[in-house]
Amino acid sequence: MSKLFLSVLSFLLLFGLSFAAHGGSWQQGQCQISRIDAREPSIRVRAEAGVTEIWDFNNDEFQCAGVSIHRHRIQAKGLMLPAYHNAPVLAYIVQGRGINGVLISGCPETFESSQQFSKEEGERTQRFRDKHQKIGHFRQGDIIAIPAGAAHWSYNDGDEELIVVVLQDNSNQANQLDQTPRSFFVAGNPARSQQQYGQQGQGKSGNVFRGFDVQTLVDVFGVDEETARKIQGENDERGHLIKVERGLQVIRPPFSGEEEYGRRDAANGLEETICTAKNRENLDDPSRADVYNPSAGRFSTVNSLTLPILSYLRLSAARGVLYRNAIFSPHWVVNAHSIIYATRGGARVQIVNHKGQAVFDGQVQEGQVVVVPQNFAVVKQAGEQGFEWVAFNTNDNAMINTLSGRTSAFRGLPASVIENAYQISSEEALRLKNWRQETLIFSGRRSSQTGRVATA
Amino acid sequence: MSKLFLSVLSFLLLFGLSFAAHGGSWQQGQCQISRIDAREPSIRVRAEAGVTEIWDFNNDEFQCAGVSIHRHRIQAKGLMLPAYHNAPVLAYIVQGRGINGVLISGCPETFESSQQFSKEEGERTQRFRDKHQKIGHFRQGDIIAIPAGAAHWSYNDGDEELIVVVLQDNSNQANQLDQTPRSFFVAGNPARSQQQYGQQGQGKSGNVFRGFDVQTLVDVFGVDEETARKIQGENDERGHLIKVERGLQVIRPPFSGEEEYGRRDAANGLEETICTAKNRENLDDPSRADVYNPSAGRFSTVNSLTLPILSYLRLSAARGVLYRNAIFSPHWVVNAHSIIYATRGGARVQIVNHKGQAVFDGQVQEGQVVVVPQNFAVVKQAGEQGFEWVAFNTNDNAMINTLSGRTSAFRGLPASVIENAYQISSEEALRLKNWRQETLIFSGRRSSQTGRVATA
Amino acid sequence: MSKLFLSVLSFLLLFGLSFAAHGGSWQQGQCQISRIDAREPSIRVRAEAGVTEIWDFNNDEFQCAGVSIHRHRIQAKGLMLPAYHNAPVLAYIVQGRGINGVLISGCPETFESSQQFSKEEGERTQRFRDKHQKIGHFRQGDIIAIPAGAAHWSYNDGDEELIVVVLQDNSNQANQLDQTPRSFFVAGNPARSQQQYGQQGQGKSGNVFRGFDVQTLVDVFGVDEETARKIQGENDERGHLIKVERGLQVIRPPFSGEEEYGRRDAANGLEETICTAKNRENLDDPSRADVYNPSAGRFSTVNSLTLPILSYLRLSAARGVLYRNAIFSPHWVVNAHSIIYATRGGARVQIVNHKGQAVFDGQVQEGQVVVVPQNFAVVKQAGEQGFEWVAFNTNDNAMINTLSGRTSAFRGLPASVIENAYQISSEEALRLKNWRQETLIFSGRRSSQTGRVATA
Repeated sequence: MSKLFLSVLSFLLLFGLSFAAHGGSWQQGQCQISRIDAREPSIRVRAEAGVTEIWDFNNDEFQCAGVSIHRHRIQAKGLMLPAYHNAPVLAYIVQGRGINGVLISGCPETFESSQQFSKEEGERTQRFRDKHQKIGHFRQGDIIAIPAGAAHWSYNDGDEELIVVVLQDNSNQANQLDQTPRSFFVAGNPARSQQQYGQQGQGKSGNVFRGFDVQTLVDVFGVDEETARKIQGENDERGHLIKVERGLQVIRPPFSGEEEYGRRDAANGLEETICTAKNRENLDDPSRADVYNPSAGRFSTVNSLTLPILSYLRLSAARGVLYRNAIFSPHWVVNAHSIIYATRGGARVQIVNHKGQAVFDGQVQEGQVVVVPQNFAVVKQAGEQGFEWVAFNTNDNAMINTLSGRTSAFRGLPASVIENAYQISSEEALRLKNWRQETLIFSGRRSSQTGRVATA
Repeated sequence: MSKLFLSVLSFLLLFGLSFAAHGGSWQQGQCQISRIDAREPSIRVRAEAGVTEIWDFNNDEFQCAGVSIHRHRIQAKGLMLPAYHNAPVLAYIVQGRGINGVLISGCPETFESSQQFSKEEGERTQRFRDKHQKIGHFRQGDIIAIPAGAAHWSYNDGDEELIVVVLQDNSNQANQLDQTPRSFFVAGNPARSQQQYGQQGQGKSGNVFRGFDVQTLVDVFGVDEETARKIQGENDERGHLIKVERGLQVIRPPFSGEEEYGRRDAANGLEETICTAKNRENLDDPSRADVYNPSAGRFSTVNSLTLPILSYLRLSAARGVLYRNAIFSPHWVVNAHSIIYATRGGARVQIVNHKGQAVFDGQVQEGQVVVVPQNFAVVKQAGEQGFEWVAFNTNDNAMINTLSGRTSAFRGLPASVIENAYQISSEEALRLKNWRQETLIFSGRRSSQTGRVATA
Repeated sequence: MSKLFLSVLSFLLLFGLSFAAHGGSWQQGQCQISRIDAREPSIRVRAEAGVTEIWDFNNDEFQCAGVSIHRHRIQAKGLMLPAYHNAPVLAYIVQGRGINGVLISGCPETFESSQQFSKEEGERTQRFRDKHQKIGHFRQGDIIAIPAGAAHWSYNDGDEELIVVVLQDNSNQANQLDQTPRSFFVAGNPARSQQQYGQQGQGKSGNVFRGFDVQTLVDVFGVDEETARKIQGENDERGHLIKVERGLQVIRPPFSGEEEYGRRDAANGLEETICTAKNRENLDDPSRADVYNPSAGRFSTVNSLTLPILSYLRLSAARGVLYRNAIFSPHWVVNAHSIIYATRGGARVQIVNHKGQAVFDGQVQEGQVVVVPQNFAVVKQAGEQGFEWVAFNTNDNAMINTLSGRTSAFRGLPASVIENAYQISSEEALRLKNWRQETLIFSGRRSSQTGRVATA
């Protein structure tokens, strides 16, 4: 069975190798983004309790944007083993619910039971006390922010499959090594594949304890050799997603959808922020929309102003919903790459470079990813089924400049500039400038417009 | 006529291609700046209302400094079409005056007419109201700061040719893509040249609307196909600088030379700063000098302390004036590359690397550019005509350390260190340390010195 | 004699050349750190008053971490000539004591004598007044922070050899050029070696004044040509460390070990911070320890919270002392590379990458350097003689996450996660989690543990 388990890690290793040979061209100073595609994951990494699907980060647009992206599908009662990454991560919960923990050294174990509780274990009943760091609930529509180097685990405590799409920003300042995505597992045996043995010829890999001497682990943890070897996980064949047959026993507050985060005694400086920081925000609630057009759709953003930990991660996100045939205003993102994951429906998306050339003009369907490089112009037109997406932005306060609509760059232009620039009449210039009364989300049929021409 | 119009854009494209092949050496980790030259622009891009001259950014010193530079010469009534760049920009007005607008989505249209005003258009008189975002006046000696991704336009409303030299900091953190300078035009047809067709073999380029489908523009703007095609500008042969025959009609306050910027209702965070931020400062007024020596010249700086938007751009500038034969103290810039554009006269400039080798020792004349890499030692000696320049620095608070003069590193050294280091007598050491009483701008003849030797 | 003087500078030049050819692989986007070694310096640069030993920065781990390291051994009455570097520097005083000055243009000369004092010079007695910038005392155990581009000198005013180990962070944001370490000397003749002439074929190098024309120096300093040539130092054969036979005469306050830094009249902004900033902290005093275990050792850190100038340098440091057989908890540094210099004794150090592979498992002895890349897991086990080290971290507030101990990531994990992840019993899980009551420094023998198992 282990031969089927191709872990995230193993594939990243393989890519890493080919990357050095392949990725040279764009690194010599220029990103030749002549074509962008709507991408689907090209690698499936199966494990006991689910599968992780990985987009090939050798594609030019991912390399130029310095990001990688993957999607977990975790079965009910599936546990993603604790791991940390070499770059900050934003995750969006496409479907399902769960609990997770982000582990930071020095942060207090604030979840504790003042009463003993019992736990069935085979034949006997055992009583013990546990305490651990904060655990969070998450659910569909949540954006979750994980700093670089912070170990975290997740558990599907719902009834349906948990689907999580994850953006890792490898070019982020928080990563000082190189742009290769690296996952450091602190448990389990994430990497066991023939491919890996073939390529590396080493046959030894796994969680970080695997690299330590067994006797060192014995000394450090005060366990016997057998347990030390279990910590190294060499013979574990479950992969990075494991099944917790009887369900995970943790101490946790009741799930209200929006947790309260009280103040706690914390260390000074960064640790204070990190130990008690809110790291999650739901973007699906329609009542939370930042832009809303009842006839066309809505748009919600989360940035460092609404979720302060993002100022530390230098990332932000947005959620868009376009109704049937609606249009998302042509625009460019001033200060970020925007990585778009389609969560439902489909749209025609056009992306234009500085030469005025369409580097992408095609359909983006549910489950696909498209990268919009910084400053490239983009327009989205929903199809008959509408279009929903989440956008990950490589800036904690991504700024959009629109090319049409009430708050657009066009509105800011004097009509006389428009008139002369496009060689149209002043009447046409004013019409062009003022016709769209909507801001960002446009209804797609002229008949539904509330436009008026401001000429007298 | 269109074949003569070689736009900025088209040349940048050509450079971009050769750059990938050429620029490899310095990207592999080291800048081999063994020779620096006083450079002149090597490409002239003609348009209807003027010409843009571009320095070849393939030169090692530009690549190492991560900057590009170009100069616009815009005729009276010439309009530079709105465009945005992938990196922050500092412009210096070498000659002339004009008006400009920086367009930022979401910023309010604060320039509006409460009265109808009339506009001659061919035979008839038309009355309409317009409103638009803030417009600024600029004049000779102004430094203008434009953030990355912010669309802007400029118009020569004076009688003489408007000359603007522009520094673009491609290695700035605000640019997340690569160091290629990219200009995104939102109007006109900036790129039409045989060279481009030849190299690219595509024949399709222009403003960003060109890359969108015509029907999409019809839907977005509510215009007919003919107007949509005008927006795309395919048949526009005027280039990026166009002539406004009857003059540009905009709403604007009277020009006082120094505008007042009142507070306005603005959005929170960055937008507040950007919508209402002052982005301009005049460096030519002698009364504003930071360093002044009546017998040798003056020096004026603008940095994030005097023009706060520069802390966002991470750039600053300085203006120097040396009288006949005067000397600008040997110094190094601690935390920035310094890109020097000579505005008048000429000087002998010597630039020395960490090996103690002169990588440049030559004349810099009006209109030439010389790059002084970070930490390299430099001295300027004005010729018989004096020397004037503007320096663009790649740090919002560039710090100069002088090697001679009243505030120099030498003055900070104990005389005993100087004595031993240079193997001179303690008398000579004190003389060396204290002889120059001037700070930064030295008169060039000994006879005019006010030096004294502090030995007793 | 001059042929023996191979200066720091000359070797850096040589390395720089080979670096371009050699260093390409890791620059194309990936650091292939498959093996790390405990390194010793490979180049010895002799000078009149000592020697500088340089670690070869072509090694993968130095290049990936973007740092270089060297060690000065300066004899009593030895003066290190004033120089500045293209990147910020942290120095640790391994042995001895001395005085130093950091020279920053515009900072006032605050050390002055209100009385004349006399100085023996050969036969006669001379009286003069001097004033200069702040001078600091330093002693064994001090960390000294020097910003990029700030010229500084040091002098051994003690009786024993002064040993200083220096970390230069070339990949720091403060260095805008490339990762080559560059030293700009403002005095002396640091570079005179056959190797250099052979490689460069130029034969002209030295301090920065060497690159300027002699007549320019005559004009600037008001000296005669002979003195100008002495400033250029062409015939100086003493190298970068010179002997001050009669001892250096400077104005300085009495040495208390911990200087008081009063407020001074200073310029605004950065200069204020820099002119009067404390740039030194002693890490050797046991009473200052941040972590202390009487049976195992201690750990002291200095970061931007304790020495604010470090927030500007983006560097920090730590000092560790392990007693015989003690263990430093397995951990990873979340946000920094950690460059470890062993100051006494020896330890077995294991470093593990994201594949769970040991990239280093060996002894580190006094005087050796080992690089721990960001996020790599590491454990140290002191030998029979104990182990002492200083760690330079490439973040001004380096965060450690431990894998064992009272504040570890393990403690934060629910026992149920541990139980399932490692396939052990819940009893074992609680034992694993709670056995180590120590925080960071563990005693190495089980018998000395105060561990208890928290099962009931």
